[in-house]
Amino acid sequence: MQKRYIFGVDMGGTTIKNGLFTVDGKLLEQWEIPTRVIENGSHILDDITETIMKKAATNNIKIDDVEGIGIGIPGPVGEDGTVYCCVNVGWGIFNIADELYKRTGVCVRADNDANIATLGELWKGAGSGCSNIVMITIGTGVGGGIVTNGKILHGYKGVAGEIGHMIVVDNETVKCSCGRCGCLQQYSSATGIVKGAKQMLAEGNADSVLRKCENLTAKDVCNAAIFGDKIGMQVMDRACWLLGKALAQISCIVTPEVFVIGGGLSKAGMFLVDSIQKYYQEYVFHASSDVGFVLAELGNDAGIYGAAKLFIE
Amino acid sequence: MQKRYIFGVDMGGTTIKNGLFTVDGKLLEQWEIPTRVIENGSHILDDITETIMKKAATNNIKIDDVEGIGIGIPGPVGEDGTVYCCVNVGWGIFNIADELYKRTGVCVRADNDANIATLGELWKGAGSGCSNIVMITIGTGVGGGIVTNGKILHGYKGVAGEIGHMIVVDNETVKCSCGRCGCLQQYSSATGIVKGAKQMLAEGNADSVLRKCENLTAKDVCNAAIFGDKIGMQVMDRACWLLGKALAQISCIVTPEVFVIGGGLSKAGMFLVDSIQKYYQEYVFHASSDVGFVLAELGNDAGIYGAAKLFIE
Repeated sequence: MQKRYIFGVDMGGTTIKNGLFTVDGKLLEQWEIPTRVIENGSHILDDITETIMKKAATNNIKIDDVEGIGIGIPGPVGEDGTVYCCVNVGWGIFNIADELYKRTGVCVRADNDANIATLGELWKGAGSGCSNIVMITIGTGVGGGIVTNGKILHGYKGVAGEIGHMIVVDNETVKCSCGRCGCLQQYSSATGIVKGAKQMLAEGNADSVLRKCENLTAKDVCNAAIFGDKIGMQVMDRACWLLGKALAQISCIVTPEVFVIGGGLSKAGMFLVDSIQKYYQEYVFHASSDVGFVLAELGNDAGIYGAAKLFIE
Repeated sequence: MQKRYIFGVDMGGTTIKNGLFTVDGKLLEQWEIPTRVIENGSHILDDITETIMKKAATNNIKIDDVEGIGIGIPGPVGEDGTVYCCVNVGWGIFNIADELYKRTGVCVRADNDANIATLGELWKGAGSGCSNIVMITIGTGVGGGIVTNGKILHGYKGVAGEIGHMIVVDNETVKCSCGRCGCLQQYSSATGIVKGAKQMLAEGNADSVLRKCENLTAKDVCNAAIFGDKIGMQVMDRACWLLGKALAQISCIVTPEVFVIGGGLSKAGMFLVDSIQKYYQEYVFHASSDVGFVLAELGNDAGIYGAAKLFIE
């Protein structure tokens, strides 16, 4: 008999987001639990099992009626469910699908968090109706997910979509967290934007509203740029130039129907999209000049949708 | 009843290469016919039909015993067999699978020529045993094909893999054939290498064996570099630097198991591969540092193998 429910789980470094779905894709309920990173994250799978079992019981759902648990992980995941390393929560290499199945008795599919967010946006968000999308998440870093022909592109060992680590500036001397110099996320992530603004403020005496900000954020820099502040504009212009150029290169390689822009910085809305797209058009190969640019629509819920989608054809 | 034969066709601007295969993938015979580009290539499909029918008759093969005709086209092809434009032979937009089926009565699958060459190398050549490869063809231009999970990556409208048109140099003023400035193939194709050498010879008085070459070829420049000629070394170094850097960016996006280097320039062998790989290592994200580099093995036959593979699971 056809089972009726799916759980979608999106694991972050601070909280674990959970969704209870019907097998035809309706979100019935969503909730969060904290991520217990103590003792190398060794309690996390038990916590997820407990919260799922409780939610099932509260809703009078028999575990036999659960089709599967989809889960997104903040690190590379192999197609068989092997987690290769998950720095944020202290995990080493193990098979999360097997381990969570042992605890719950339910079939488990796992994937990288950026990938499932992309799949979520394709299914129920900004990419709906498309089969080929690339999602760029601009937050602490610059992350990416690629869906081609409706399927997540994993690449060898699950490391496809590392858009933030494309080297886009030559002769950089400051190192990225990955150890190399000149990665996209050094300039175009929220962190990179703040760094860039601080550097520019320190190097010159130009008037800027940013001098008044005590705890400078990327949002401040973005707002300053929107209101014509010179330093704000210069920093955002560089961030968007490098993003537009990198996306044009991505278009030469995988050619999506749309780019979906998400992450904290995407709250800057069309200002950000328009600036990126302006530079994209300068660099793009003519056959990809009509690729669309849209803002992500599901916000922090993209992950639970995408995780559930792992069980929906 | 299981049919027993497949034809693989690789259409170029000058010749059409053909292969007769068994359905289990054995190449029985191969031959060429010229590509008749006159009158906007309107005779080509009739020529292909005729040569296939003749070959079948000579081998006492009934057309009912032919599983399919796979064909590679020098231009973008949609997944349904739509040729979008094929400048070399004067074709506009039409469905080649339908047209060739009407003439032959045999099921037809079509794809881009770089894509089928990549599929051929994956199946019977340098990428055998792999599921994820990227092939770079360095000849008149720089072309590319991408296979992920054993399937050709088409992207939206079939334009994925346009590696030669990644913009890799800022502030270039000379235009690429595509109308933009700074594309990879302006520096790293055989044509780009010859241009680069000629420019360097014209700009200075440095001693170089290349001054003696009447019709300078990329092979001359490559050989000169191998034997320590300064201008040859500088030109090849730039070509390989930009290739290595571009492949590192491709690794961030699709992450193959191996890069297969093919095309006329690949005859330079390990000199070329080693130089590209040296720069690749400088730019690559650590998770992709063990991606392999191999020379293409099938040469001009890759296309007919890949075309036949379109009918073999």
